[in-house]
Amino acid sequence: MQTTRDIQSTRAAVAAARRTERRVGFVPTMGALHAAHLSLVKAARSECGYTVVSIFVNPTQFGPNEDFERYPRDVAADLAKCEQAGVDLVFLPPVAEMFASDAATTVHVATLTDTLCGPCRPGHFDGVTTIVTKLFNIVQPDSAYFGQKDAQQLAVIRRMVRDLDLPIEIVGCPTVREPDGLALSSRNAHLEPNERAQATSLHRALCAAREQIQGGQHDPDVVAQDMRRLIDAAGPARIDYIGVVDPESMQPIEHIAGAVLVALAVRIGQKRLIDNVLVDPSEQTS
Amino acid sequence: MQTTRDIQSTRAAVAAARRTERRVGFVPTMGALHAAHLSLVKAARSECGYTVVSIFVNPTQFGPNEDFERYPRDVAADLAKCEQAGVDLVFLPPVAEMFASDAATTVHVATLTDTLCGPCRPGHFDGVTTIVTKLFNIVQPDSAYFGQKDAQQLAVIRRMVRDLDLPIEIVGCPTVREPDGLALSSRNAHLEPNERAQATSLHRALCAAREQIQGGQHDPDVVAQDMRRLIDAAGPARIDYIGVVDPESMQPIEHIAGAVLVALAVRIGQKRLIDNVLVDPSEQTS
Repeated sequence: MQTTRDIQSTRAAVAAARRTERRVGFVPTMGALHAAHLSLVKAARSECGYTVVSIFVNPTQFGPNEDFERYPRDVAADLAKCEQAGVDLVFLPPVAEMFASDAATTVHVATLTDTLCGPCRPGHFDGVTTIVTKLFNIVQPDSAYFGQKDAQQLAVIRRMVRDLDLPIEIVGCPTVREPDGLALSSRNAHLEPNERAQATSLHRALCAAREQIQGGQHDPDVVAQDMRRLIDAAGPARIDYIGVVDPESMQPIEHIAGAVLVALAVRIGQKRLIDNVLVDPSEQTS
Repeated sequence: MQTTRDIQSTRAAVAAARRTERRVGFVPTMGALHAAHLSLVKAARSECGYTVVSIFVNPTQFGPNEDFERYPRDVAADLAKCEQAGVDLVFLPPVAEMFASDAATTVHVATLTDTLCGPCRPGHFDGVTTIVTKLFNIVQPDSAYFGQKDAQQLAVIRRMVRDLDLPIEIVGCPTVREPDGLALSSRNAHLEPNERAQATSLHRALCAAREQIQGGQHDPDVVAQDMRRLIDAAGPARIDYIGVVDPESMQPIEHIAGAVLVALAVRIGQKRLIDNVLVDPSEQTS
């Protein structure tokens, strides 16, 4: 496994690999790697002969009052996990390599960022789309792998890639969960034991929503109200949003007829957790 | 010479060429080709084994009251000129090929677009940077050629390419002028004979500014006032701006000490003309 810290060496490494390998797969991360990241690596390796992981805690996608400083970092452990997972190249740029002091360019995706996490985190998606465009231009992969857990991010990146004609296939991978349903997240490490127990209410609420919708409920407000009740019953939480939206446009659905994304963001203590499920109402209630 | 109208065939043509040619050069245009465009083609051909020209009158870089409908179009003449100039591929996409009805992504360059043409043409540079990013991602050239006549556009694109880590060399090419100094522009075709005569005042004012600065004038306001006087003396004109700015940041200079860009936009009748000179005060007055 090779490690690079600058753009030029990264390009050279990928170019050398491309001479022998057919496909280059890319998994952009902010580090603090866990089983969900490794599932993306596994997906990349199953389709590509050369797999690149980037580890970069991108300051521009954190708001001024968010957890950039507190975001978990453990490069040594991350590198060991990448090595073991069969990653070929880890790109670990310092902030100065990625952002010149007079950087002036932003990539913005409208509409899809107006809902769910967008209004709660002003500037967040511009930070994501800009850094992802940069990383795509540096690594120039054939395909890139993102988790369905960040469903809005995945939809925004798909739209951006289509709109900007980036020659990259975006692959969405299933959310990886703990046995009790909690979606894996680097931020889970910060949960206190009681918060950790309470956090299972998110997935339970999403499962209840799926059951309701597949049982014939067409009204998203009824679905959201029941979810809210279930989450509030689990303990003190601040619900940023519960949304029932179109899975591509991220726009609110008024009457549930086709597939929908049910998504939520909930603060437990200082920790903000997100999760979602894709629900096809035509599938039978299991 | 090959002509393509869709993205997929364009990519296939460039990919085929790349198997045999070392460098791909790209000249993005809005058609109505004249000698200045052909000088860009010539520069591309001198450095690259395969030259691509795009012809696309991009609606998103015209304001609602601008001349999108009236912008000159002559595809047959353009193709003949490209053929004669030794262009290998002309990409001629229809609008629907470039913009999906739900396109949501914009590339924005801040700061550099706040001056000169920026405030006069809201949204113009976002239109330019977004379409150029798309064309770059479709053609994937090694180098791309732009005229110094659109100095702010050139600076904005250079900054964008640097900030987004696009692996493309941007080559600026000298402004091509008529014997009397008027900078070539597709919009010159619309000038009435008296307006055409009056339009020479733009280049005369720029030459006077250069002489003043190289003669020791440090005050940009004095330079601009004299230019304004010279342009007004030539006939009825509306001066959108006269700017003395840093050639990279496009920010106004308060005291001329190093190289500056002197740029202007002037409306003669309904026609808006732009021009500029780069002035190094350390060069002797000729």
